[in-house]
Amino acid sequence: MKKFIDKVTSRLDSISSHVCVGLDSNYQLFPSAMKKGVSISRAIFNFNKNIIIATHHLAVAYKINLAFYRGFGMEGIEGLRLTNEYLKTTYNDIPIFADCKISDMGDSLSMVKKEIIEWLKFDCVMVTPWFGSDTVKELIEDKSCGVIVYIHDSNPSASEFQDVNLNNGESLYETVARHVVTRWNKNGNIFVEAGATYPKQLKRVREIVGDDMPILTAGIGSQGGAIENLTGVFGKNQKRLLVNRSRDIIFAGRGKRDYFLAVKEAADDFRKKLLKVSVLSTSSF
Amino acid sequence: MKKFIDKVTSRLDSISSHVCVGLDSNYQLFPSAMKKGVSISRAIFNFNKNIIIATHHLAVAYKINLAFYRGFGMEGIEGLRLTNEYLKTTYNDIPIFADCKISDMGDSLSMVKKEIIEWLKFDCVMVTPWFGSDTVKELIEDKSCGVIVYIHDSNPSASEFQDVNLNNGESLYETVARHVVTRWNKNGNIFVEAGATYPKQLKRVREIVGDDMPILTAGIGSQGGAIENLTGVFGKNQKRLLVNRSRDIIFAGRGKRDYFLAVKEAADDFRKKLLKVSVLSTSSF
Repeated sequence: MKKFIDKVTSRLDSISSHVCVGLDSNYQLFPSAMKKGVSISRAIFNFNKNIIIATHHLAVAYKINLAFYRGFGMEGIEGLRLTNEYLKTTYNDIPIFADCKISDMGDSLSMVKKEIIEWLKFDCVMVTPWFGSDTVKELIEDKSCGVIVYIHDSNPSASEFQDVNLNNGESLYETVARHVVTRWNKNGNIFVEAGATYPKQLKRVREIVGDDMPILTAGIGSQGGAIENLTGVFGKNQKRLLVNRSRDIIFAGRGKRDYFLAVKEAADDFRKKLLKVSVLSTSSF
Repeated sequence: MKKFIDKVTSRLDSISSHVCVGLDSNYQLFPSAMKKGVSISRAIFNFNKNIIIATHHLAVAYKINLAFYRGFGMEGIEGLRLTNEYLKTTYNDIPIFADCKISDMGDSLSMVKKEIIEWLKFDCVMVTPWFGSDTVKELIEDKSCGVIVYIHDSNPSASEFQDVNLNNGESLYETVARHVVTRWNKNGNIFVEAGATYPKQLKRVREIVGDDMPILTAGIGSQGGAIENLTGVFGKNQKRLLVNRSRDIIFAGRGKRDYFLAVKEAADDFRKKLLKVSVLSTSSF
């Protein structure tokens, strides 16, 4: 089986895009015509399938926030399972990230892997580092199983702990990023997330992890991050940055005549904007 | 609906026990006779129901680690759902903690609440504080919805980030504990977790959160924490400490003639040991 990191970097190298499409497919926000006469699981699957058909050539990866499915019980989870099954059989070269924001350990972490990687067929687990290296131990041992660590997030209160100043002169997020690179990256199947609403921290994360490690970022647009914040963080050959966008793409069709054409246009528009910054951007590392 | 914190404290006040029973009911570890001829969901439910019948008079609360259910797919989740349904209809005065170790925010956190509190009928969500106050925002606004924050854990690598020294002289876990008390506890529906394998930190957490706030601890026994580590942290009237024990109770029946009698005895034995320390212990706060 292909190493996780190779799957991500070869996708970045082979398509002209930085867009990670976030399938935050909240059933409550679906147009009512899409819910009519079908079960919740089928409506979710149909919605995602059409999003994927519209965006698969533009998406470096899909990120799926599990909360938006689990919130609808068995039906929601089945919709997610069907989505991943479809992705795996139809577009197996596109990595799928499980955005579950968990920090776990030991036997319990093995069970997370059993759920996320074996059952739901994701390529990686997105973890928070709260419990230290135990959080990734069971995961990094398996090269085909990827890990993305939340280093510095885009949400308003991300600074509360991630930016605390340590008495070694670093901020906490810098220490976490250093640990990922120097201690946790034994099998080359791990990379990091850093939000674009904190441009200083995003740049610093790029400095720490080096030019070759992919970074997943988010927060451009409705969350308040300017696209110019990405200048200088694209990494090696301008090909090591993934930029997530969720609602602004998947719900772009609301009120439009052709829902999924509007979705495709929103993804392509974002792709082009990112490429423009990426071309202008010269990596300084 | 009863306030979450009142549900926990009235349970602590009314039964002579500190034991929180952890239903880490890993189907793989069930005796084969319990799996024979029944579905996974039914086997899990039957197992848990019998554990509950054996321990309900000894348990202050039940803590359910969701990973051990989600790892078995829909069947595992259905086993969990049936367990909580049974607890709610039969022993509604016993709080159920959702050990899901998540840190989330915004719409996504609302969905976590929809899953954990509304659908699965838990009384509280156990969160890690990585994303700052956004992690608890949607949860603490609803008094009936409880939150337990992982402050300092019992696992080997817990110190990696939780114990880092900040330039204000505190360790990170101390800052987090202070934020819980001074900023997040607006509605009295939040308390904290701190592992018994780090006795110094556990005592410090008690100092910070004060005498009245419940603390959930774990790590006594097979994880290496000595029961004496609990001295001085029982809080007000020696009634504000919950001590989780999972496998040592629920799998105590393996190889025994009467499985659930052995489970009951293990829980009761642990209860008595804890009471002994609690009686000897005089809270110094």
